[in-house]
Amino acid sequence: MHDFELMRELHVSGQGKILLLVMDGLGGLPLEPGGPTELEAAHTPNLDALARESICGLSLPVGPGITPGSGPGHLALFGYDPFRYEIGRGVLEACGIGFPLEKDDLAARGNFCTVDAEGRIVDRRAGRIPTEKCVELVAMLRQITLPGVEVFVEPVQDYRFVLVLRGPGLVAELSETDPQQLGVPPLPVKALSPPAEATAALVNEWIAQARQILADQHPANMVLLRGLSKEPGLPQMGDIYGLRLAAIATYPMYRGVAKLVGMDVLPTGDSIEDEIATLKEHWEEYDFFYFHVKKTDSAGEDGDFARKVSIIEHVDEVLPEILALKPAVVIVTGDHSTPALLKSHSWHPVPTLLWSPYCRADEVTQFGERACMRGGLGTFPATDLLPLAMANALRLTKYGA
Amino acid sequence: MHDFELMRELHVSGQGKILLLVMDGLGGLPLEPGGPTELEAAHTPNLDALARESICGLSLPVGPGITPGSGPGHLALFGYDPFRYEIGRGVLEACGIGFPLEKDDLAARGNFCTVDAEGRIVDRRAGRIPTEKCVELVAMLRQITLPGVEVFVEPVQDYRFVLVLRGPGLVAELSETDPQQLGVPPLPVKALSPPAEATAALVNEWIAQARQILADQHPANMVLLRGLSKEPGLPQMGDIYGLRLAAIATYPMYRGVAKLVGMDVLPTGDSIEDEIATLKEHWEEYDFFYFHVKKTDSAGEDGDFARKVSIIEHVDEVLPEILALKPAVVIVTGDHSTPALLKSHSWHPVPTLLWSPYCRADEVTQFGERACMRGGLGTFPATDLLPLAMANALRLTKYGA
Repeated sequence: MHDFELMRELHVSGQGKILLLVMDGLGGLPLEPGGPTELEAAHTPNLDALARESICGLSLPVGPGITPGSGPGHLALFGYDPFRYEIGRGVLEACGIGFPLEKDDLAARGNFCTVDAEGRIVDRRAGRIPTEKCVELVAMLRQITLPGVEVFVEPVQDYRFVLVLRGPGLVAELSETDPQQLGVPPLPVKALSPPAEATAALVNEWIAQARQILADQHPANMVLLRGLSKEPGLPQMGDIYGLRLAAIATYPMYRGVAKLVGMDVLPTGDSIEDEIATLKEHWEEYDFFYFHVKKTDSAGEDGDFARKVSIIEHVDEVLPEILALKPAVVIVTGDHSTPALLKSHSWHPVPTLLWSPYCRADEVTQFGERACMRGGLGTFPATDLLPLAMANALRLTKYGA
Repeated sequence: MHDFELMRELHVSGQGKILLLVMDGLGGLPLEPGGPTELEAAHTPNLDALARESICGLSLPVGPGITPGSGPGHLALFGYDPFRYEIGRGVLEACGIGFPLEKDDLAARGNFCTVDAEGRIVDRRAGRIPTEKCVELVAMLRQITLPGVEVFVEPVQDYRFVLVLRGPGLVAELSETDPQQLGVPPLPVKALSPPAEATAALVNEWIAQARQILADQHPANMVLLRGLSKEPGLPQMGDIYGLRLAAIATYPMYRGVAKLVGMDVLPTGDSIEDEIATLKEHWEEYDFFYFHVKKTDSAGEDGDFARKVSIIEHVDEVLPEILALKPAVVIVTGDHSTPALLKSHSWHPVPTLLWSPYCRADEVTQFGERACMRGGLGTFPATDLLPLAMANALRLTKYGA
């Protein structure tokens, strides 16, 4: 429906600031039929008051029944069709550890694994070795050099690491080496297009050296590489919307995604209070703030309903401080649902409110899943939010005469 | 938004079974302003109780204002975009009589008609001759042979029959012979592409012989052929969703459509009780059951409001038997509306409920058209149902990292 050409064409300069408050995994489910969701159970007088003056709805990040990963979930909130624009797993993993990825870097997600004497995989995660062991093995792999490229290996967590190659002419159209089953050897990297042949050969050479270096280790005596990818070259939000954009997020992955879409990533601390201090400090410098709260999702993933409730309540408590800055538009939403009941991301659409003096408020009086179902936005694609925010900030001119 | 590639990519194995209960032509209209529809008038305590724990809405099989035939209506319920995937009328008619159509068969829907001495059509339906006469004439037409192909002619009902040619190299890009007006002769079959020339010649030869055989009959002294088509080669649901699928339906057409999408069609009897016995008998063997109730539509087509109400009430009575099997996901819907007021299929979206422990129930407390209007699914494309069912059965993994 909307597309970037339209936004590029229609955006005008303005004064009003847009605040996009993302509570990660905000949407939830009742623990028992008829009960409240996490958001419904939370005591949220400030969010409810804001909802009364807002237009509300349920945002669908990817599509009906589709559970979004964090990458697609955030791309949709930022206005990118998550089918058209994809961030490879290698790039996302590199973002996730704050690796300073450059434009032509090739990144892969790595697993340590266990192979038997014949080279057949017996454990795809090497017995989930601890992170300290991972750090140690990564240090060994850093010995590997390849002709014409710089090689970076970085530990992530447990059995996971990131491999980054930096140099001219790397092509990411490459197959993965994880056969996704046991009893067979890892696959070689294959070029999925003729220009990728040279890159495939380089990665296979790295794998061959890694195999030798790890030969005497146990259980992590081999590696698997997945999601070989390059920075996707996303259209930059500053150009699309004519905004100066800043990201305030505590976790590296979200900071990384924000960087990929062209936001300035502001240094901040670990707590919501740190994030608010950062917001205040930089308030005058930007037109748009992406403000990310991670811990709602973490609590959902842990299946901890009460903790998710209390984090939502914490956000509610600090909301007046944010509103005191007088944003022209406030959106409160999530990048996907993470119901404690499911202990994972889910497909459920996400409670969303959009406040501005011009939002045409609906009759929703409480910020919650069932209340938002009756909201004026209905169940809507998350990609609609940026154009709606721009309109409500009076930053779009009309289409056609 | 969703497409089969996504479903093929994201589906995972699971334990939960999906039950799709289709009451044909379920949606209705009030007989007078402010009155209840058939479904609203029916006493349905079990459906209402299920609706209270479900997410409800109105499903749109094809599009706003578009009245679906049974083919498109069912294709949409099964997840197929009814504009992209079409089942030709000849194939549908062959399915409708349970003809064992093979992959490369060419099927046509035939009408007996009446022509005058100059060969001009004077009645496109040959005075709606009775079925017994149709059977008799079809027997005469079975004398016709054609070079290189087997020829099947089967009676359907009244003036309608099915013609099937079986042999190598038949091409279905053919025009119809019914000019859709009186006073002109039937059209010859024309090839709509060069490869179809030989097939067009064969069909025209069959028509020429039929004309001779029927010359002395009255009023059915000629034939018209429509919807010349081949089995559409639909993507198979088993591959798309990773499910073992079974169909339980009493009418041949629905059994035929289910077969075309790759379901196992289970032998069953004529009554809803027979269908339930079949469901119980095969419960352990499949992951997905399409359960079809025909008589709601027949009552609507007859304009019999009260009979449609009583059939809905009958389904409500047997619902507990179905639920006792403990499906993980239950969908209750129709393939289109058939309001008794209109005595025909209609364009109205269809009341739908989706129940699972994870459905995020809305506030709908009764299963009916106006209640479903306020449901959490809103008015939604029927093609969303399969992805939603898959998600609720926990049979889809997340999209992107």
